[in-house]
Amino acid sequence: MSAIFPRVALIGLGLIGSSLAHAIRRAGLADTITGYARSTETRAKARALHFCDAVCETAQEAVRDADCVILCAPVGAFAELAAAIGPALKPGAVLTDAGSVKMAVVRDVGPHVPDGIHFIPGHPIAGTEQSGPESGFAELFDGRWCILTPLPGADGEAVARLTSFWQGCGSRVEIMEPKHHDLVLAITSHVPHLIAYNIVGTAADLEEVTQSEVIKYSAGGFRDFTRIAASDPTMWRDVFLNNREAVLEILQRFTEDLTALQRAIRWGDGDALFNLFTRTRAIRRSIIAAGQDSPQPNFGRTPPASG
Amino acid sequence: MSAIFPRVALIGLGLIGSSLAHAIRRAGLADTITGYARSTETRAKARALHFCDAVCETAQEAVRDADCVILCAPVGAFAELAAAIGPALKPGAVLTDAGSVKMAVVRDVGPHVPDGIHFIPGHPIAGTEQSGPESGFAELFDGRWCILTPLPGADGEAVARLTSFWQGCGSRVEIMEPKHHDLVLAITSHVPHLIAYNIVGTAADLEEVTQSEVIKYSAGGFRDFTRIAASDPTMWRDVFLNNREAVLEILQRFTEDLTALQRAIRWGDGDALFNLFTRTRAIRRSIIAAGQDSPQPNFGRTPPASG
Repeated sequence: MSAIFPRVALIGLGLIGSSLAHAIRRAGLADTITGYARSTETRAKARALHFCDAVCETAQEAVRDADCVILCAPVGAFAELAAAIGPALKPGAVLTDAGSVKMAVVRDVGPHVPDGIHFIPGHPIAGTEQSGPESGFAELFDGRWCILTPLPGADGEAVARLTSFWQGCGSRVEIMEPKHHDLVLAITSHVPHLIAYNIVGTAADLEEVTQSEVIKYSAGGFRDFTRIAASDPTMWRDVFLNNREAVLEILQRFTEDLTALQRAIRWGDGDALFNLFTRTRAIRRSIIAAGQDSPQPNFGRTPPASG
Repeated sequence: MSAIFPRVALIGLGLIGSSLAHAIRRAGLADTITGYARSTETRAKARALHFCDAVCETAQEAVRDADCVILCAPVGAFAELAAAIGPALKPGAVLTDAGSVKMAVVRDVGPHVPDGIHFIPGHPIAGTEQSGPESGFAELFDGRWCILTPLPGADGEAVARLTSFWQGCGSRVEIMEPKHHDLVLAITSHVPHLIAYNIVGTAADLEEVTQSEVIKYSAGGFRDFTRIAASDPTMWRDVFLNNREAVLEILQRFTEDLTALQRAIRWGDGDALFNLFTRTRAIRRSIIAAGQDSPQPNFGRTPPASG
């Protein structure tokens, strides 16, 4: 494939930034990749891994002459980053991001975008529980959706080019309003992470059950929650601080539903339990049919050796 | 390995019963395996799969002359099954089970156990989201823990034999009080299942987000919950009806903790969020170190082909 953007700048070189670099190289989506990360340690790791052509000491330097700039840092850092790079952006460049919230990104980045820059917020729905420049891999976005939330009056050609870019990374692309994005992600990602973090915290704090027991018997279901509860703390703190309204709305629904289940258990209403447990099976089947999860039992985990 | 129990009877031939049959055959733990399932369809499937030497039309017939009888049905069926097989049990036989709760099993099965039978409740902490006789496999118990909850005065030799049996199936064995078992499992298995079922139900019922959106963007975290929310509805209804007290206690703790998180989000307390999200990472690492989950990102799921 010929380069969609001759020069791409990745601001943030953790799981998403490094995976993007690998995916860009796999498909030849850019001729040159520059990168920047706030911490000296991350820049040094990224240099050693060679997934960028140049890892720069400042964000301004990284975005110079770039045709596409992708913010891949935790969203709490976006306002400061946008203020820093705004004046250095090349006229006609596409400025996008990989942040998990979109209204706050429009709010924080928008005011710093000069005229003549195509600001198109985006969010690839892909990740793992690992973080850092060494955790990235080219296949992360394969078959996953990337949501773009262009603002009213966005340039159609720029949106089309960014769409082709994400498709080149292996993604399928959807266009959405920022507000709707934030609500959809609150239920498909943010509240699931919150309750996973919460149950792991509850388990850690029990007095009557030891931590060692929680760990030994985690294959009963608990271990599933520990995966997403091992995700990057800074990224997730920023998600919750920046999608407050939608998260609180979905959390309210979750709590209402859980209270009804609690009542069903207290009063021995087996039919209510059975009916819910039957409905939820169908959604799993649809997710597998849509290619969004493994059909193998236990996610295809290999059982460890006996003993 | 020479047979630990010459004749084993499996009452219930779903995921656990069929996996036990495969594991028993793999290690030669019995010379003869008989089986029984309540539904005609399950008995027919089990016969076609040939993992038992004989699939019987009644539970009484299946337990006749058996040296070890293992109840592998949903725990709500145990009282009736125990009443039916009690008079047919061979003197000196071990009667055990694979139920996910233990106090209720002692309560429901205990009164039907004749003198001279070694009743030793048990629970292998292993499973998948699949069910039925076709879902079983010999490796299910490899490296997983099996908890035995012998009653006061239990015969040491019988407990030792049952321990060897489970070790032969690939398990590690722990002895515990039934009441403590039920509390440990409430946090490591039952409440995790309940909140997984609950979030999947909440997602299905939203008006502002379509089911199709929930499915498409499930890779953001939601899909993880759908796995355990696809578990057998009858089995799980019976678990919640039969471990009410411990489930409600843990649920109360979970809800308190979630309310504190909700408040942290509402008031923008980033430090409280960050501190919890950092603590929970350590538990994941311990579970992997204990061999109870895969160290690979995303549980080692293979990404689907692009497009």
